[in-house]
Amino acid sequence: MTDTSLNQNIIERVAMGDMLRRRSREDGDKLALVDFPGGQRREYTYAQLNQRANQMAHGLIAKGIQQGEKLALVSSNCSDMFVTYFACYKLGVIVVPINFMQNPDDIRYNLEHSETVAVVYEDILAGVVRPCMSGNENIRLNIQIGSEQGDSDISMEDLIEGQSDDEILDRVIQDRDTAHMIYTSGTTSRPKAVETSHLSLVVAALTGALELDVKKEGCMLLILPLFHCAALSMSFPTLLRSGNIVIHKSFDVEAVLDAVEKDKVDNATLLPMMWNALTSSPGVEQRDLSSFELGIYAMAPMDANSLNRVREVFGCKMHLGSGQTEFAPAACLFMDKSPTEFGEGNYWGRPVSTVEQAVIDDQGNELPQGEIGEIVWRGAQAMSGYYKNPEASAEASLFGWHHSGDLGLIDKEGQLLFVDRKKDTIKSGGENVSSMKVEQSLLSYGGILQAAAFGVPHPHWGEAVCACVVPSGDKELDEEAIIEHCKQELGNFEVPKKVVIAEALPLTGTGKVRKVELRQQYENLFQ
Amino acid sequence: MTDTSLNQNIIERVAMGDMLRRRSREDGDKLALVDFPGGQRREYTYAQLNQRANQMAHGLIAKGIQQGEKLALVSSNCSDMFVTYFACYKLGVIVVPINFMQNPDDIRYNLEHSETVAVVYEDILAGVVRPCMSGNENIRLNIQIGSEQGDSDISMEDLIEGQSDDEILDRVIQDRDTAHMIYTSGTTSRPKAVETSHLSLVVAALTGALELDVKKEGCMLLILPLFHCAALSMSFPTLLRSGNIVIHKSFDVEAVLDAVEKDKVDNATLLPMMWNALTSSPGVEQRDLSSFELGIYAMAPMDANSLNRVREVFGCKMHLGSGQTEFAPAACLFMDKSPTEFGEGNYWGRPVSTVEQAVIDDQGNELPQGEIGEIVWRGAQAMSGYYKNPEASAEASLFGWHHSGDLGLIDKEGQLLFVDRKKDTIKSGGENVSSMKVEQSLLSYGGILQAAAFGVPHPHWGEAVCACVVPSGDKELDEEAIIEHCKQELGNFEVPKKVVIAEALPLTGTGKVRKVELRQQYENLFQ
Repeated sequence: MTDTSLNQNIIERVAMGDMLRRRSREDGDKLALVDFPGGQRREYTYAQLNQRANQMAHGLIAKGIQQGEKLALVSSNCSDMFVTYFACYKLGVIVVPINFMQNPDDIRYNLEHSETVAVVYEDILAGVVRPCMSGNENIRLNIQIGSEQGDSDISMEDLIEGQSDDEILDRVIQDRDTAHMIYTSGTTSRPKAVETSHLSLVVAALTGALELDVKKEGCMLLILPLFHCAALSMSFPTLLRSGNIVIHKSFDVEAVLDAVEKDKVDNATLLPMMWNALTSSPGVEQRDLSSFELGIYAMAPMDANSLNRVREVFGCKMHLGSGQTEFAPAACLFMDKSPTEFGEGNYWGRPVSTVEQAVIDDQGNELPQGEIGEIVWRGAQAMSGYYKNPEASAEASLFGWHHSGDLGLIDKEGQLLFVDRKKDTIKSGGENVSSMKVEQSLLSYGGILQAAAFGVPHPHWGEAVCACVVPSGDKELDEEAIIEHCKQELGNFEVPKKVVIAEALPLTGTGKVRKVELRQQYENLFQ
Repeated sequence: MTDTSLNQNIIERVAMGDMLRRRSREDGDKLALVDFPGGQRREYTYAQLNQRANQMAHGLIAKGIQQGEKLALVSSNCSDMFVTYFACYKLGVIVVPINFMQNPDDIRYNLEHSETVAVVYEDILAGVVRPCMSGNENIRLNIQIGSEQGDSDISMEDLIEGQSDDEILDRVIQDRDTAHMIYTSGTTSRPKAVETSHLSLVVAALTGALELDVKKEGCMLLILPLFHCAALSMSFPTLLRSGNIVIHKSFDVEAVLDAVEKDKVDNATLLPMMWNALTSSPGVEQRDLSSFELGIYAMAPMDANSLNRVREVFGCKMHLGSGQTEFAPAACLFMDKSPTEFGEGNYWGRPVSTVEQAVIDDQGNELPQGEIGEIVWRGAQAMSGYYKNPEASAEASLFGWHHSGDLGLIDKEGQLLFVDRKKDTIKSGGENVSSMKVEQSLLSYGGILQAAAFGVPHPHWGEAVCACVVPSGDKELDEEAIIEHCKQELGNFEVPKKVVIAEALPLTGTGKVRKVELRQQYENLFQ
């Protein structure tokens, strides 16, 4: 590596570590992060956050962690997660955020498959992650967040203590180098590791800030977990705009409303149920929520009443952002009060300006308006690929489109309507059955809290529709009555041939139903 | 090249041709361009512009133009310049826009040095460009814009006629491939060709749209020449936002005001003298300019009175954008009503969010607040380098900063104040003399229209300050009196040792004084 190429690289590259350095230089005295370790408010300006990230980077260098190696991060939301992300981004060390709500087998698999060499974990998660590290010979270093070392090699404060805060300017980092690697929750198979480049993240941050009109020096409330792409994708536009992120570890209605009042929060990304909980809070009408401007909901649609209620209480716009680990959100936005053809359905809206969105058939042909096919995207926000899985990577990029694995259609207004998970589609009697449609019918029966429809092998139907339901109360559910109810609403091929009453459904770490497990469990039902 | 890498490239790449395709897909029926060939209004929607660019691309393929080859574009502002740019961007053909106001020697040099293989030119410029092509054996194809072929090989309409409008999706275009190559006007040496990548342009467009708050589906008036980086850098954010560009060939006060009234223009980038001409127009007060929101001035500062007058007449914000061919504008913005330490000076303001800005000494050390040094930048907007000139490229990227060649300081508010061209600095008696400071003193004498100060070799001073001035009226200028005047305002080492009264100054194509010529002309004055 000649000096010339290092000079040119550091000038022109698109790299996440540079983003923080730039904000620190220009807006060093502005507030970047607020969190509440042990219930005590803690604040970092951009200069302090950047300094701390530099110190951690030098600490990792001192411990022999090399560019390109993987560092796993196991923590609930806190400012030191950002410190860790940016220390690694600056070094070219690849962060592997771990969803600690997975089962231990999956966590162990994440650590082994990624060839992680260092683990940074929160003290309260030591009992979760340490057993998953046993026998793993790649791991050379583990660090416990905070000033207590516990059973780790070193506490994060000791790692940082006395380290230089000089910028790391001596390494070549390419735009397409992997910045972090997130394991997908795996509704259909073993978790896969999604490699996301620096360039993807920067383009997503710029585009997000532009499309959502993220305010300069605004204030965002962060609640979604920082091991997930959605929380990261919403945080980076705020950091790019020198905004302040108020970090909560978990969702607490009154704490959220307090934050809006005290910290003058102007935007937040929450799940629909969280929005509903906020607007149902007693006394919410007496709160001063006037700072709030931009609400984003994710993962699921909201009905018009709920949306209107949020708009009324918070006086804000409500946009729906969609995307996935494999395509840094938001790939598309369903903007506040967009016109739609089919009313209130599960609209995902239109692509952001740097993204191309289409619906294609299984041969890669784009489908005309109104026809259902796979939702596909193009754009720099796409993953570089699945780590050590060229087959799955090639499959996901077939025909020159990133395959979302979801089915949808584009309506007359150009708005994308999500229809179903592609893999959740059941092929019954030669027809595609939307498992979501079946589930909606089941839920409308009454007394059902959760429902999952899936296909199982069947001599006549090919795949027969089967369902698992969880009762919402004490009342006994009657399988025959449920099936009769579905017959009123669904085509014969869509009606479940079997409804299992269960106490709970198997869930992934992020709360999606693990249908692969259900399919396996019931695969011999009709054979 | 395997199919897999083509698939992944087209998904994730950051490429200018994709920008237009995406706008055409999403906002195909929105107005993209308006121009006035032969005085007749002509309009293109995004779908039409994209279709025409695709057709031109297929026409160029049919004529054997290959990816990576250079195509020179010689035209005054018109929609077909955009068609040509985007046809080439889609193909990976490198556009070489030619400043046709250069002298013929420079145009000939541009064509030869760039190894241009095809030339697209406007009919009225045939007489300018064709003589510059004589004897150039690289050029295989020349195309005259419009439906008349003239002396060219084919008219643009014939090239396009009957061609497919299919998208070009079968070529691998890398983020860092050169999109276009612009020759700098060369105040100090032979023109150098600046290679700008697709990634640079896309990041500049995203950042520009974000920082300037470019309206979605807004309307921009374009007057600055499209062979220059400033006009391109302002156009791309508008196109990214599905806006409409109203294209004027030249500056005409009433035509501009008409456009604002009729087309509801909301933003324009103009030179200070243009803004002043607009606000001085009789009857401007009676115009309905209410659509106008954002004024940008470039190349030079404006005094508070002039700025206030524009704000009052247009009811708009006024930002100053700076940058250079080598660093796609805007690198920095002096935002409307920014606080400053030194009042009205030549402020360039603060870097945009993807750019790092500093002032350094000759050893590459960053200078503290208030100290004068070279203005340097980092960011994806930096050029890839000077074409076939590794020495100049290495010099421009020394110490890992892009060197602007300008001198400045950063004030207490973090605002960059431009002080002088670095190369215009005169080293006299061991002291740095700002040629701009000398020029301002000369202009304040009265009766002087233009002044240029420069250094010439001198046995005592090392370099002696010398000046050329152009009288503003018929009144004879007196050299001794001018020098006496300067002595009242300047240090002895700064006072011109010789003032030459001239009829005109030698200018570059974009109106900068060619000081290199003045230095050569007077180099023996004191020896």
